[in-house]
Amino acid sequence: MKPVTLKQIAEQLNISVATVSKALKDYPDVSIKTKTKVKDLAKSLNYKPNSFAVHLRTKESKTIGLIVPEIVHHFFSNIIKGIVNEAEKKGYLVIILQSNESYELEKKQIDLLLSQRVDGILISLANNTSDYEHLNQVIALNKPLVMFDKIAKMVSCSKVIIDDRKAAYDATQHLIDIGCKRIAHFRGALLPLNSIDRFLGYRKALLDNNLPFDSSLVYMSEFGDMSFEAGQISAKKLIEDHKDVDGIFVNTDLVAIGALTELKRLGVMVPEDIKIIGFSNWFMSSVISPSLTTIDQPGYLMGETAFNQLYKEIIAIKNKEETAPQTITLETKLIKRESTEIFSKN
Amino acid sequence: MKPVTLKQIAEQLNISVATVSKALKDYPDVSIKTKTKVKDLAKSLNYKPNSFAVHLRTKESKTIGLIVPEIVHHFFSNIIKGIVNEAEKKGYLVIILQSNESYELEKKQIDLLLSQRVDGILISLANNTSDYEHLNQVIALNKPLVMFDKIAKMVSCSKVIIDDRKAAYDATQHLIDIGCKRIAHFRGALLPLNSIDRFLGYRKALLDNNLPFDSSLVYMSEFGDMSFEAGQISAKKLIEDHKDVDGIFVNTDLVAIGALTELKRLGVMVPEDIKIIGFSNWFMSSVISPSLTTIDQPGYLMGETAFNQLYKEIIAIKNKEETAPQTITLETKLIKRESTEIFSKN
Repeated sequence: MKPVTLKQIAEQLNISVATVSKALKDYPDVSIKTKTKVKDLAKSLNYKPNSFAVHLRTKESKTIGLIVPEIVHHFFSNIIKGIVNEAEKKGYLVIILQSNESYELEKKQIDLLLSQRVDGILISLANNTSDYEHLNQVIALNKPLVMFDKIAKMVSCSKVIIDDRKAAYDATQHLIDIGCKRIAHFRGALLPLNSIDRFLGYRKALLDNNLPFDSSLVYMSEFGDMSFEAGQISAKKLIEDHKDVDGIFVNTDLVAIGALTELKRLGVMVPEDIKIIGFSNWFMSSVISPSLTTIDQPGYLMGETAFNQLYKEIIAIKNKEETAPQTITLETKLIKRESTEIFSKN
Repeated sequence: MKPVTLKQIAEQLNISVATVSKALKDYPDVSIKTKTKVKDLAKSLNYKPNSFAVHLRTKESKTIGLIVPEIVHHFFSNIIKGIVNEAEKKGYLVIILQSNESYELEKKQIDLLLSQRVDGILISLANNTSDYEHLNQVIALNKPLVMFDKIAKMVSCSKVIIDDRKAAYDATQHLIDIGCKRIAHFRGALLPLNSIDRFLGYRKALLDNNLPFDSSLVYMSEFGDMSFEAGQISAKKLIEDHKDVDGIFVNTDLVAIGALTELKRLGVMVPEDIKIIGFSNWFMSSVISPSLTTIDQPGYLMGETAFNQLYKEIIAIKNKEETAPQTITLETKLIKRESTEIFSKN
């Protein structure tokens, strides 16, 4: 069964295609009687307007593009859900692409989305993205662009972020408050800004509390890999190198859970011997044993906020209004659980 | 900066728009010299072909639609990743929608995707979908449709599934093999076929092993909710009602982990007092304590397979070839972990 065309409707009613088209769009110069006839027939024939033709005229595709480094990731899947739900409310469809943390793929995907004439683009950068030409190109085309979570400060567009430095400071301060004196840090990849900011927050908390900063206590996983296995490997090295460590601030929950599992295997007690705090509040952090203290990052809200900012900019461009890029910072929260409980040795 | 048009390129080179268009498409009746001039200028001006116009002509949108009940779900996010990665290889973009397990929303989304003229649709049904008119409409329009995981047998389209009945049978048989005699079943919602099939597999394993089937040992969560909390609630009721139960087959890992957590809180030992097996092999099942025995469902592979089947059907329609609907059944695997270890009481 082929899609029904305006022509078929016109022939069946013995009127012109132009009249059918006008009737369906409620033009005032078509009689109500004709409009009713056309609409009834269109409905009974299950007529769908050809949206490409419509969009060609309005220059709107009513679709937006979304690029994330990884889909199977508790934080990102929450963001995706927030974006998709919010977009649906406003009548937009979302094309989702995964960059696999690859700058090359990300660049290709931006081109793909532009050639698809999306109305705007939402992006969280790959870890190794350090050149921003592809993003500046989007801005040069006057196409709304909003970055979230993993952003580049130098690109002049709206951003939705958390204050990574403050959140990492709070996490480290919590370890200090409960008595830790030798605190290690497992950080992710070298480049992404949030990885750098979390490291800086950790270091500042140590220095503000007159604890020495020791760079040998900072572990970076090979290839910047942020996996369960990366946590296991770093924990093993840490125990071999530093017997005196009493706390670890890990830059993401999945790595922290890998570390917890390895420490358990090595007979190191958490929280008795070493206290651990993660980052991101993955669901599984609440159900493992011991449950993991962490920083809650509002993924769903970040998705909603990023879409709504993009939507505002799409509308502004449509109305030929000027907009200035916004940076929206969302609140984080310390979630205390068993992995940092105070253990009395009596 | 407005997008560059063919007209601007034509004016700058003092040739016709038709020649520019032909040059960009490598028509043989345009000289190589002109082609090179046009392509160089188009590149330097960052010209992007208007894909809507192109698609209007070819009637292909090079996008497909994907409807899933829930994005934040380990199994579905793996499926999404498999689909998105495979689609990218074949040059297709994926519009992702979430039905929130709502039949009404799912129906609306099918309409939305059809009006967007996607080249095909992939869908996993909402739990309460029992009317298939919206799906039959897709088929009537000769638009490829592939269902995966949560399917309707009555709809005549390709399907990618696992053998839920066999997998549930294997899970229950494993509990019987390690000595369980009174086995409860936590099932999900009433309607979806996989929920029914898992229940039937459980019951058949009992009967084949001459164990009585007792319907009071089958727990259905309120509103068919398949959450962590649903597992906690069912586990609490089970312990109040049946002191003699020694095994539980739970229809999904998240509910099983809720049950595990509640049993721990009530002082019931797993696997000593009660053995538990889940379904789906969520990542977190491997890191909780005790780790959860489960049935591995190949999410990523299911996504890849579903996309490739859809792609075949898109190409077949393009080439005006006939295709018969396929049902592809993927293998599942029993993953033995601590929650069903044999405990010797000496």
